[in-house]
Amino acid sequence: MLVPFRVPQEDTRAMPTDRLFSRRDVNFLLDEWLDVTELTRRSRYADHDRETFESLIDIAEQIGTEVFAPINRLLDEQEPRMGADGAVIVPVELAEALRRFGESGLIASTFDDELGGGQLPYLVRAMCGAYLAAGSVAAYAYPFLSEANANLIVAHGTPEQIATYAVPIIDGRWFGTMCLSEVQAGSSLGDITTVAVVQDDFSYRLTGSKMWISGGDHELSDNIVHLVLARTPGAPVGVKGISLFIVPRFLPDESGDPGERNDVELAGLNHKMGYRGTTNAVLAFGGGYRTPLGRPGAVGFLVGEVGRGLEIMFSMMNEARIGVGLGAVALGSTGYLHSLEYARTRTQGRPATAKDPSSPQVPIIDHPDVRRMLLAQKSYVEGGLALVLFCARLVDEVRCARSVTEREDAESLLGLLTPIAKSWPSQWCLKANDLAIQIHGGYGYARDFPAEQFYRDNRLNMIHEGTHGVQALDLLGRKILRGGSGLRLLAARVHGAIEDATTLGGEPARHAERLAEQWRSLERAIAVTADEDIAPILANASAGLEAIGHLVVAWIWLEQEVVAENKAGDFYDGKRAAAAYFFDHELPTVSSLLDIIARRDRLTLDLDPAVL
Amino acid sequence: MLVPFRVPQEDTRAMPTDRLFSRRDVNFLLDEWLDVTELTRRSRYADHDRETFESLIDIAEQIGTEVFAPINRLLDEQEPRMGADGAVIVPVELAEALRRFGESGLIASTFDDELGGGQLPYLVRAMCGAYLAAGSVAAYAYPFLSEANANLIVAHGTPEQIATYAVPIIDGRWFGTMCLSEVQAGSSLGDITTVAVVQDDFSYRLTGSKMWISGGDHELSDNIVHLVLARTPGAPVGVKGISLFIVPRFLPDESGDPGERNDVELAGLNHKMGYRGTTNAVLAFGGGYRTPLGRPGAVGFLVGEVGRGLEIMFSMMNEARIGVGLGAVALGSTGYLHSLEYARTRTQGRPATAKDPSSPQVPIIDHPDVRRMLLAQKSYVEGGLALVLFCARLVDEVRCARSVTEREDAESLLGLLTPIAKSWPSQWCLKANDLAIQIHGGYGYARDFPAEQFYRDNRLNMIHEGTHGVQALDLLGRKILRGGSGLRLLAARVHGAIEDATTLGGEPARHAERLAEQWRSLERAIAVTADEDIAPILANASAGLEAIGHLVVAWIWLEQEVVAENKAGDFYDGKRAAAAYFFDHELPTVSSLLDIIARRDRLTLDLDPAVL
Repeated sequence: MLVPFRVPQEDTRAMPTDRLFSRRDVNFLLDEWLDVTELTRRSRYADHDRETFESLIDIAEQIGTEVFAPINRLLDEQEPRMGADGAVIVPVELAEALRRFGESGLIASTFDDELGGGQLPYLVRAMCGAYLAAGSVAAYAYPFLSEANANLIVAHGTPEQIATYAVPIIDGRWFGTMCLSEVQAGSSLGDITTVAVVQDDFSYRLTGSKMWISGGDHELSDNIVHLVLARTPGAPVGVKGISLFIVPRFLPDESGDPGERNDVELAGLNHKMGYRGTTNAVLAFGGGYRTPLGRPGAVGFLVGEVGRGLEIMFSMMNEARIGVGLGAVALGSTGYLHSLEYARTRTQGRPATAKDPSSPQVPIIDHPDVRRMLLAQKSYVEGGLALVLFCARLVDEVRCARSVTEREDAESLLGLLTPIAKSWPSQWCLKANDLAIQIHGGYGYARDFPAEQFYRDNRLNMIHEGTHGVQALDLLGRKILRGGSGLRLLAARVHGAIEDATTLGGEPARHAERLAEQWRSLERAIAVTADEDIAPILANASAGLEAIGHLVVAWIWLEQEVVAENKAGDFYDGKRAAAAYFFDHELPTVSSLLDIIARRDRLTLDLDPAVL
Repeated sequence: MLVPFRVPQEDTRAMPTDRLFSRRDVNFLLDEWLDVTELTRRSRYADHDRETFESLIDIAEQIGTEVFAPINRLLDEQEPRMGADGAVIVPVELAEALRRFGESGLIASTFDDELGGGQLPYLVRAMCGAYLAAGSVAAYAYPFLSEANANLIVAHGTPEQIATYAVPIIDGRWFGTMCLSEVQAGSSLGDITTVAVVQDDFSYRLTGSKMWISGGDHELSDNIVHLVLARTPGAPVGVKGISLFIVPRFLPDESGDPGERNDVELAGLNHKMGYRGTTNAVLAFGGGYRTPLGRPGAVGFLVGEVGRGLEIMFSMMNEARIGVGLGAVALGSTGYLHSLEYARTRTQGRPATAKDPSSPQVPIIDHPDVRRMLLAQKSYVEGGLALVLFCARLVDEVRCARSVTEREDAESLLGLLTPIAKSWPSQWCLKANDLAIQIHGGYGYARDFPAEQFYRDNRLNMIHEGTHGVQALDLLGRKILRGGSGLRLLAARVHGAIEDATTLGGEPARHAERLAEQWRSLERAIAVTADEDIAPILANASAGLEAIGHLVVAWIWLEQEVVAENKAGDFYDGKRAAAAYFFDHELPTVSSLLDIIARRDRLTLDLDPAVL
């Protein structure tokens, strides 16, 4: 069954279209590069066609532009706060926007038919999410996390848990959260101390507190389904002792509706640099504030097996991290398009060659340094979008593989690329936002213009869902040095692009040669002898992540250049210009990073902290 | 006469010392490198000794730590707003902090004896300013701008103007502003339209509006002296038609006290990403809100000659830009020291080699990637401080030169280094703040910790007092390609350091060789043939600025390394480690930037804006 996608009723258009993403670029990537239509030949997606995809993206663009973007600044200014009764107060405009989003049916779109979902490709859904995040990343965080929550329950819960907790989220009535971090355990999740004790009826009672919980408490939905990591008594220390629990804010009554309030209490709100519209809570579980079923303690229900909590949580990690990358790209993209419009219309100064002070001032896009800042943004934003959508298509490949080998290969490549898809846009689309501020000059620093908020919102992305440093260790340690076939598969794809580009000659061939050369440097840098101590490589994992990220995006630009070859017009010329920028101004920076790895630099590894 | 420096009365110490700057580093730079005591042998500074300098810095550190820093977050949260009567409302804590600062006499410290000043070296005063900015850049902005204002009046005003307007500022009773920008004229000051019409009594009446005026309106001082750029009727278009005027908020009465209110009105407040504690105003001059001397029009008084306004304003530009660089360093430094303290005390995770989950968590400074982020900050912050203090000493050299050649040389070198001293810390100490956020993880993104505010405050520095792009054109265009002897003088100093380091052997010699090699690349890259079109170089001026900035700071690290040679202890080992970081992780990035200049890259110069 296809979800009946409903177009929002009112038109409150507050900004022009094409200020979130260039739709031309989106279609280029989906059709000319990723061949999204091919997915309709997979049985899972056979009910769909390209027009369904287009109309879904239309709706996401419309909600992003007309519902989310107009309240984005307001959500920043009117941060959630705690009322006298301990409840979270958010602007009514947020509730209204989420209601209109809920009506669209978008949240259900990728779930299975049988769950009331639309069974749409993840790739298409990812692009929709990008439009929504570009409209307001803080508003979109609520449904984004809820969807991830429901996905996890669907994948690992019992049929009853799915019916009770996932379906109301898919229907858009309930929201969900992920409760991992504690005060003393952020990156180091093995050190959590929240405890879950089994009861006679096989339910659990949880005690402990969790922090940084996005969407942790509010009155925006009928119920909130918390997914909580906790330890069972006597469980082994470290990650092997962690289990996962469903802890609903309201315990469902016999008809499945929200009933008695659980012993989960808002202990405080975190106030952040950006992303302010998303409630960020400290939650007390089992603090004795309520007495569900007659006594204190937060009632929870085990998901999957005891001791497998972190593993289950991380089974969704690829998609969560791709989601972070998409959010970073979304903020980068809307910042780019806003600064592009500003540069076309703001007049200031005159060209270096025409200094007659009585001549009219020119649009600042006429200054080469402004064009540099725009072209750099374009190369980061369109490169980042392509990277993340490539990964999203791999998610579909995993789901719809036609053979075990095909699935394993897609999984390996996705596993390798995920830390890059999370961290590269978090770093470089943030840099894009920084350039968008700079193009606006003083106005970029003023809160009347959106550029500075995009930057503040985006700054979270290098931190949450695994910091940059965590991603770097994942890529270098787990995926490359101890890793499976991911790098080999990537190399094959990179060399395929190099071959195609070389055949074309001209600029693509020149770029291909540069990429080939840098790729050889990478291979030399990470070649490890059998008895070698890899500590110096891991100590410089961040340099490795940054270098490999740039190599991957260079490859992606090369593929785009190949697709654009022999096609005429501003759009394709823009692709060629952005590719040229990336190859001539960005790729060369990789050498010094790879050299750090290649020489096994020990500076930070051996550094005595006392000298700092 | 020495100003009687008064220590603030109450002790409201809210943070430990050494959280703004490392005093050990400050003394290293002043004594072991810049030989601050030598300045006492110049006649202007002959009344002073090293102890005076020390006690002045003590006071600045104390005010920064105990008066400014404790209200820094409050100033961010309680932004100036317009009351019902049109007056600006700021927290009373700001007024109290500025009162206590005023009592210290610091603002008078560099002015001449005869004006009631302390005639202290600019170098010492700069370091004091850095401590104050590190405490609260938003609070310090008021006296910082006032001092610059008084400096300009002292240099270019009539004796009567000095007595009437500069002396009350030097005494700490009045504040001052600089009114340059208008809505349509930010970087392009030649396009301002505010008009000043001469009156029978040789006063002027001004009409027009100015924006981005820091400290533009408030009740914090008895009067505000605006220095306003405006055009006289019939003046030539462009910069040659601009004159400079003193426009006081209150016209002084016959005894010199604030009398009748001038026709200068607050038209609005700008709300910014950071620096929120500094009132940022749109001002209407001559809008007819008041009728000074019986009729509307803002009464102003010409400073210097008609048509020389921009020139006069820019005569103070070196010091203003060094001040920006110092502010950037100050924010970088306090961010570094806060994140260092956090990294020493926050426990999280375990070393890669000790994965026993029951072992206690380690301080995060034990993770090499955290040490990398600290060492990078140290190299940016201490390198930036050294750069800016070197320039500050050049200001003293210019003031106290013992010969015309000595003065001209100091001026040339200062002129060359000023755009770098403004922009390099603005870029890299901002990067330091970004790393400080990252070290704090989620806490770095939370407004309960100061790291994110340091970042937001610092982000202004790449924009005001000439954007990064403007600095780049100044350096490449005016100072290098069309430039005098600055680069030759710098090269001589750089090669002196290379020689010294080479003689020492070991690491300094290795670093010297790298610097020599990159310096040769620079010289090749900027060597211009007689008939060459320099447009491709100017189009890439930002790359040039960044490359030359890194080369300059590498030279400065080399000099520090030479000074530290053969000295033992953590402090000197830290200097060596930071130098090693800069040479091994930062300097190599210069190659790809210089290559852009060397190959005369035309990508952004020739780019058709339509393809963006």
